Formats: sequence, structure tokens, C-alpha cells
Amino acid sequence: MTRDKLRIIPLGGLGEVGMNMMALEYGDDIVVIDCGVLFPESDMLGVDLAIPDMTYLVQRKERVRAVLITHGHEDHTGALPWLLRRVNVPVYAPRLAHGLIEVKLKEYRLLRESQLHVAKPGVPLELGAFAVEWYRVCHSIPDSTGLIIRTPVGTVVHSGDYKIDHTPVDGKPTDFGRLAQVGNEGVLLFMADSTYAEVPGYTPSEQVVSDTLEQVIAKAPGRVIVATFASLISRIQQVMNGAAAHDRRVCVLGRSMEDNVQMALKLGYLAAPAGLLVKVHEANSLPPHKVVFITTGTQGEPTSVLVRVAKKEHRDLSVIPGDTVVFSASAIPGNETLISRTIDDLFRLGATVLYDRIARVHVHGHASQEEQKMMISLLKPQFFIPVHGEYRHMVIHSRLAQSMGVPPANTFVLEDGDVLELNSQRGDVVDKVATGPTFVDGSRLWDTDSSVLKDRRLLSRDGFVVVMVALDKGTGRLAGKPEVVSAGFVDEPDLLDESRQLVIKTLDKGGDRPVEWSYVNSKLKEVLGRFFYEHTKRRPMIMPMSVDV
Amino acid sequence: MTRDKLRIIPLGGLGEVGMNMMALEYGDDIVVIDCGVLFPESDMLGVDLAIPDMTYLVQRKERVRAVLITHGHEDHTGALPWLLRRVNVPVYAPRLAHGLIEVKLKEYRLLRESQLHVAKPGVPLELGAFAVEWYRVCHSIPDSTGLIIRTPVGTVVHSGDYKIDHTPVDGKPTDFGRLAQVGNEGVLLFMADSTYAEVPGYTPSEQVVSDTLEQVIAKAPGRVIVATFASLISRIQQVMNGAAAHDRRVCVLGRSMEDNVQMALKLGYLAAPAGLLVKVHEANSLPPHKVVFITTGTQGEPTSVLVRVAKKEHRDLSVIPGDTVVFSASAIPGNETLISRTIDDLFRLGATVLYDRIARVHVHGHASQEEQKMMISLLKPQFFIPVHGEYRHMVIHSRLAQSMGVPPANTFVLEDGDVLELNSQRGDVVDKVATGPTFVDGSRLWDTDSSVLKDRRLLSRDGFVVVMVALDKGTGRLAGKPEVVSAGFVDEPDLLDESRQLVIKTLDKGGDRPVEWSYVNSKLKEVLGRFFYEHTKRRPMIMPMSVDV
Repeated sequence: MTRDKLRIIPLGGLGEVGMNMMALEYGDDIVVIDCGVLFPESDMLGVDLAIPDMTYLVQRKERVRAVLITHGHEDHTGALPWLLRRVNVPVYAPRLAHGLIEVKLKEYRLLRESQLHVAKPGVPLELGAFAVEWYRVCHSIPDSTGLIIRTPVGTVVHSGDYKIDHTPVDGKPTDFGRLAQVGNEGVLLFMADSTYAEVPGYTPSEQVVSDTLEQVIAKAPGRVIVATFASLISRIQQVMNGAAAHDRRVCVLGRSMEDNVQMALKLGYLAAPAGLLVKVHEANSLPPHKVVFITTGTQGEPTSVLVRVAKKEHRDLSVIPGDTVVFSASAIPGNETLISRTIDDLFRLGATVLYDRIARVHVHGHASQEEQKMMISLLKPQFFIPVHGEYRHMVIHSRLAQSMGVPPANTFVLEDGDVLELNSQRGDVVDKVATGPTFVDGSRLWDTDSSVLKDRRLLSRDGFVVVMVALDKGTGRLAGKPEVVSAGFVDEPDLLDESRQLVIKTLDKGGDRPVEWSYVNSKLKEVLGRFFYEHTKRRPMIMPMSVDV
Repeated sequence: MTRDKLRIIPLGGLGEVGMNMMALEYGDDIVVIDCGVLFPESDMLGVDLAIPDMTYLVQRKERVRAVLITHGHEDHTGALPWLLRRVNVPVYAPRLAHGLIEVKLKEYRLLRESQLHVAKPGVPLELGAFAVEWYRVCHSIPDSTGLIIRTPVGTVVHSGDYKIDHTPVDGKPTDFGRLAQVGNEGVLLFMADSTYAEVPGYTPSEQVVSDTLEQVIAKAPGRVIVATFASLISRIQQVMNGAAAHDRRVCVLGRSMEDNVQMALKLGYLAAPAGLLVKVHEANSLPPHKVVFITTGTQGEPTSVLVRVAKKEHRDLSVIPGDTVVFSASAIPGNETLISRTIDDLFRLGATVLYDRIARVHVHGHASQEEQKMMISLLKPQFFIPVHGEYRHMVIHSRLAQSMGVPPANTFVLEDGDVLELNSQRGDVVDKVATGPTFVDGSRLWDTDSSVLKDRRLLSRDGFVVVMVALDKGTGRLAGKPEVVSAGFVDEPDLLDESRQLVIKTLDKGGDRPVEWSYVNSKLKEVLGRFFYEHTKRRPMIMPMSVDV
């Protein structure tokens, strides 16, 4: 390690969307930017969550000065419990994120010993060699920020998750004045959100959605049910505004949505005129054109309110012809099939369903290419690192920076674990540290290559067969009849019976000498594997087991 | 059943994309339109294919006159082997589909006894009460057709899968003249492809892609690798044209692509100047700017050439910086994650990757709203049934027909199994027959609610634990030590050892009376279930088993 260089070490979120975490290091000081989770993809069977590998930080825990949180989304905060259990350092987060993290740490019984602080935009914080300042950006949750970090090598700007919205719902646009000032003073390095680097032009303002939602609410003949993300507070405000303007009451349904609305009302991120909010029994007693429901379920999550409503399984809410259902969200990749089924089910119930393919009911929260250019233009960075996004997004984003004059040798498409050393002249990837998702599975943590997950993959395709034989300790011969059980394979007792006969035949060949179990084990696997494949064209996992009696 | 009415019975493909099959019935005569498969979705664990329920046809097999195939895609032809095994009736298909079906029936050893015939557009065929005429349409495979079916009740038109392309690659546009003539004579019922009913405007012509591909090939500094669907013959022709125009050779890679290209060349659907096609060893010896590869893998299929190339696992082809890879296809819903990983892997290898989000490298093969209107305008049908598409697509398509004057009472959004009876005045859904996908799993067929699939779902999340006890026939007590094996659960020998002790403790409580196995079985499930959940927060499938010794 070169002590007078700045080291940038992405530990999660580069090359895979979600699970954002990065270390910034100078001399003896480390600060960590964000600490998020990745929601499991379809091939992470049974896994609850993925979190970044914490090893690098745990091994240097006495040097970690703080975790700096940019905003309250789970992919930036969700892994804090796992980090704080092992590295209990101060956490600084903007006010709303602070509130959400507090709830999470309480749930994990970590709040009392945690050092959780509110970060105020514009108020710098000294952390060892670093001076950190949060600045306001627009994104799909209030109180989103980016970071201006003064280091001995130069100024680093981190964009957070952002878009440029000149007419945000909360009236708090991105702080361009501050960014221009920092840009004029000189920026060593800009690290910027790449999620929508594929998309030309500008991301539309939230205002566009306000207009659509108000029209939908104004014209709907019956009830309106708006589904969105529980953290998309500004969208909830838009729905409340539209309802209030057209003399409808609002009913918030679903635990995460209700919790978030309560918290946002308390902290002042949501404003609702008195009497606007009603409970579900009251909503159900109002005339249909007098009520709007707000709920979750836009991703087709099986336990969400909207999906249960679509399947006619919700206790308090049923869709009737004349209802209008709005999916005020876009699909998170991988969820398309579940979403599509939910929309179809609602159509079947006779609802009018509006979703992003047929109506302007959602805009997302990330910058498109012209906004990305605007930021680079304001900051004029010497070095550029695309962050947040899949690998292709980062490549495209780095080319965009190059097209604006950042020298190719000064742009770095890093992947998790790359160690970039930077001084005021140049940067080099000098090392690679261990990273990769750790899977949270109940109370256990697995690596990506855990045999447990490999077994689940096999079991999900072909099931298993367990063959059980009792062996006489003295003679080594079969005692009693072998037993065979299976699940997820075929449901045919005759075939399993036949396989028991095959086991007997196979073991009887053994003669009188005591049986070597490892031999019997592999022999049974081989004989039964062939037998089952011939009969079914499937290859179940075969596990022979024995008891000595 | 009313004998003088026409009966329309969708048996697959309405409300779910794929697996298209429909029965048309009058008096004693049944004709079947298409017979397709559905490729498994992510929750159909281990399943190879889904096919329609054939029961309705099998029970009436002496009345089935023929299967009428509209085009050669698997979702319209793939289930033929399963139908013909049980109902061996004549199959009529346009020439290219005929060629593809021939290959499939040979593979299933059904060709010899099958009655497979070529259907010629414009040449009517008498089938009992029906007179069937195929007419040409444009779609993403050559020789696509729709059907004009004269019935005693009136003329039925079925669109097949279609779009309107005035400049198709093969120079054979949709036969509007014939359709207008039929429309003028009077159409009782139009059944039309709804797949893209959500999309306003027109689907662009294939010509747009020709232009892009030619430019890409002209400008690429190194090799060009174009991936597309093996059945998208016109796209393959476009690539060959582009390569020929810029003095590059073409190498076709991958079994399904090579088979299709051979067949299409032989039947005249593809034209390649002499010397254009080269084998891979020759392609690899040419300068990079002199070669184009055509292959499959646009859906991220793990065994496809492109995915193996992206993972550096292909024997003959490696991507090097300077190569251009084109994804000339769009994502089939559900494949997004795999596709995205493949694109990222290719970016990592230094390739320039072009795909639908960033370049006009694909147009799809289905009509958008303005084309759907054009067809309705030409045919002026009395009744309208949207077919092919998810439920929401069919609802939107039926509203579009209504907006053009088809009375709402004359449009029917049917679902699989609905029996619609139609005379020249009105239509009524009078019955519901058994339908729903049948899963092909190795050599077995499962229903959707098969316990095998439910077990796979459980196993994929939490794995299993099998507990094996040997019981003394005389005393009913434990003989020897219990054994425990597990897979897909946790990989912790200590925990399993502890659970064995728990089994001993549980069974020792039994006293001296012989043990009732059903009692022991449920007791062990309960005790172990609690024990494992407390320690791991997971709920593996627990299967106790015993041998008597």
C-alpha cells in the first residue's frame, strides 16, 4: 500500500445492480459509502438476501472511521446489521434514511449499541483524513444525497442515486449551485450512478406522473387503487394530492406501506389534510368514487396486498368491475412474469388496469444520458469512475465521460474487489480483494459456491431418492428389506418397489465378506442412477444410507 | 350440443403466451388449429415443456378431421408428437412448417405412421363441413399463414401470427387482395393475434433491420457475431446479404442454427452466393474484418453458442476486443436476467455489443394496434375473438374491435376451455372443458398441481432431511443408531448429530409397547421441524423412514 495515495475499493454494486458498498481509504483512515443488500434473483434458491462480503472491512476494523449513507433504499442500507455486528462504527445518514435505519436496527436488536447519526446536507464532517459533506439530489425517495469528500489527494464527488428534476414533488431540487462551486474549485474524481446510462435524453420529472395520476383519479368512475413502492414517498404524496383535489378519501393498506406513511407523516415528508386518511372499514363504506387506496404489490410479490386482492384472497379489499388499478412503478428485472400475471388477474376481475406500457403512471429515479453529461459538465472531474449498474451500463457511462473530454486513461470501469490507487496524476488498479455476494438464508450465511445451493438447484430439477439399508454388523449382509423414499422425482410406488428389488439384487452379489460401505454406496448410486434414467429420463439425486444393526 | 351451431373451443394459448391450440366444431366434424408447446417458466421446476391438455380431442378422436398448422414456430407445432400419439389424424402445414414438423416427427419416431401434408396458400381443402384455405401473412418465420374457413354458419378467418410488412425480406407480403375479397363477401368471425395489442402505431418493417445490420457490418473494425433465433430465416438472409455486400464470409455456428440454415437453403428460403458460407476453422483463419458469425443464444440459454462464448467456454470461438456482437432479438419475458448477464460478459471481454435497448437491431413479428385495425377494417367481421396473448392483451384487442364498430355483445374474450357456440345471429359460452398445461418431464407427464412439482418447490427453498431408524420387529424399539442425511438444507455435521440424539431421546420415551409407526413418523416430523427451525430459521422437508430388522 502506498500511504500517500487514495484507494478506492468497490465492495459491492459494481457489475451487479444492488448491494452497494465502497471503501475509500487514505493512510490509516477508511470510510465506507453505503452498505446495501441485493434481493435474491431467481437462481438464488431459497435465499432471503444477498449482502456484500465484509471481510475486507472486518480485517481493518480499527481503521474504519464511519459508514456514510447516501439515501434510505435497501440496496444502500440493508446490509448494515451484518456490518455493524462485526464492525461497530458510526453511521451517518440523511434524516429519512436515519429513520428507516433506526427501524431496521431495532428489529435486529442492534439499535442500542449502534452509533447512528443524522447527516445534514451542507454541514461538513471530519473523519480522519477525510472531510465529508452531503449534498441534496433528487431520487425516488426523499432526502437523497450525494457526497463531496475532501481528501489529501483532492476532492472526490459521489453522485449517490440521482436524477435531475427541476420540479420535484417536495420542492427540493438537486443542489446545482454547490456542485458548480465544487466543480470550479476542482474535482479530482467523480463517481456517478450508471443505472440508466443506456437511455438517451432526460428522465422526465415526477410532475408528469402528478398530472397523469390526477387525471386518472378525476375520471375514474369507481374506486382507484394505486400500487407503488413503499419508499416512494413523493408518489404517495402525489396520490394524496390528487385524492384531496377530487374530494376522495385515502386508505393506505399493507404493513410496509402503513409504517412508511406513518413515519413520513411524523417526520414531515408527507402532508395530508385532516380527515383525508381513513381506515379500510370506513373506506369500504364510502361510495366507490369517493375513495383511493394506496398499497404495495407492483412487483407481483406473492404476499403483497395487491397480489392477494388480484387472487381474491384479501380479507378487506376486493376488486369489482368499475375499479381502476394503477401500477405506479416499473418492473425490477426478473419480476416480469409475476407482474404480468397480477395484471392479468386484475383484468379478469373486470378492473381497468393502468401500467407503464400503456400509460404515463411512473417515472424512475435515475439520470439518463443528458443528465449524466450535465453533471460531468458541472464538475469537470479529472478522473471518472462509473458506479451503480451492470457492467454494460458502466462501460457506456465511461464512454460518455470520455466523449466529454475525460481522458480514457482517467476513466476506470472497476468491478467489485478492484483496488484503485489514485494520486493527483494517475490511477492504477493494484490489487484485487475478496468480494462476491454472501447469501443470507434463515440464520445462516452461504458463499455463492456453497454446496447447499448447488444441491437445491439439483433438487429443484429432479428431486431425490434416498435408499436405506440395514446391514448386519457381523456378516455385513442386508438385515431386513431396503427402504426407498423420494420427493420431487416421480410419484410412482411401483417404480420405487422395483428399485428396492434392484438394491437387494445388487447387494446379494456381495458374497459373505463384510461389505465396504463406500463401495456399496457408489455401486448403489450407479445402478439406481441408470435404472431411474432409463425409466424416467430424469437424474434424481441418489443418496444411499445405512444403519448397522 | 346444438348441431347447427359452430363451436369454438380454445384448448391452449388464450390467457398465456404459447401452447396454441383450438378446436373448431360443426356437427360431427372437428378441425384443430395449431398444436404448440409452452417453454417452461421459472416456477415450472425441472419441467422440459408444457403442452395443452389433449383430453377433449382424445375423447372425440373419430370426429377430428385434421390439424391445420399456420406456421412453423414451436408454440404452434411443438405438441404434435403428443397429440399424434393419441389421435393420429392428418396434419396440413405450409411448406416450411411441414419441413420442420417432419424433422420433429422423425426425432420422436412418429414420421412413418403420420399423415403429414403440405398446405398450399390459395388451394382450398374440404374437411367434412369445413372448407379451409390458407392465406399468406408476414411473421418472423417464412411461409406463415392465416386461415379462411368456410363453415355452414359463415366464414371464419383466423389471423395466425402476423404483422403487416409491405417490404418483407422474402418479397412476399400479406395477401390483402384475398382478405379484402373475403371481407366483401362477408365474414362471420375473425380470430386475431393479440400479442402486441398494447402497442400503439405500426410494427416497423424488417427493412429497418436490414439497414442497421448492413451499417454495422460495414463499419465494424473486426469480426461481427450476430445472434438471432434459429427460425428467423429472414434475419439470417439479411445478415448474409450484408456480409456479401461487404466482402465478408459467413460462418453459421450451433446445431439448431446449422440445421435450419441447411434446410432453408435446400427448400429455397435462403439464398447464399457460392463461397459465402465457410466452416469455423476457415473463418478463424480469415482476417477479422472478413468474417461474420451467425449463431443462437439471444435468450441467454446456458448451452447456446453465444453464452458459451461469453463465458469463454466455447471450443471454436473466442471473443476478442474489436469484435462486434449483435443481439438481433428481443427478450422473451422471463429471460431478462440471463440475457443481461450474457451481454455483460461480452462487454467484459471487450466486445462492442449492440442490443435492442441501444440499437435498431430487431423488430418483432406481431401486429401493433394500427395493423390490427387495418385487418378488422378489411374483414368487417360480425363477431370477433382475440387470440394469442395474455389476458390483458385480449381485453385491449377486443376493445379495439369495439371501437371499430363490432358490437360488444359480439366480441368474446375467451379463456382456454371455454366453449363458444355461434350461429349467424349470436354467440354464447355454453360450457367449459378441462384444459390447462400438462408438463413434460423426462418421459413423464404431470398436471399443474402434481405433488412432484410442489415437492420440487419446497426442496428448492429449504432442502430436505431424511431420518432413518431401524426398529426391532419384536420389541418395536430402536435397533442401532438412527441415521440422518440432508441436502439443500445446511451443511453442518454437528447439527445433524444433535438431531440424531434428539431422535433417540424422542423414541426412548416410547416405553416397552410396540411402536405405532404413523405416530412415530408425525412425532419425529414435529420434534425435528421445531429443532431445525429454532437453529436455522429454515423449514426443510422432513421424511422419517424405518426398516424393520
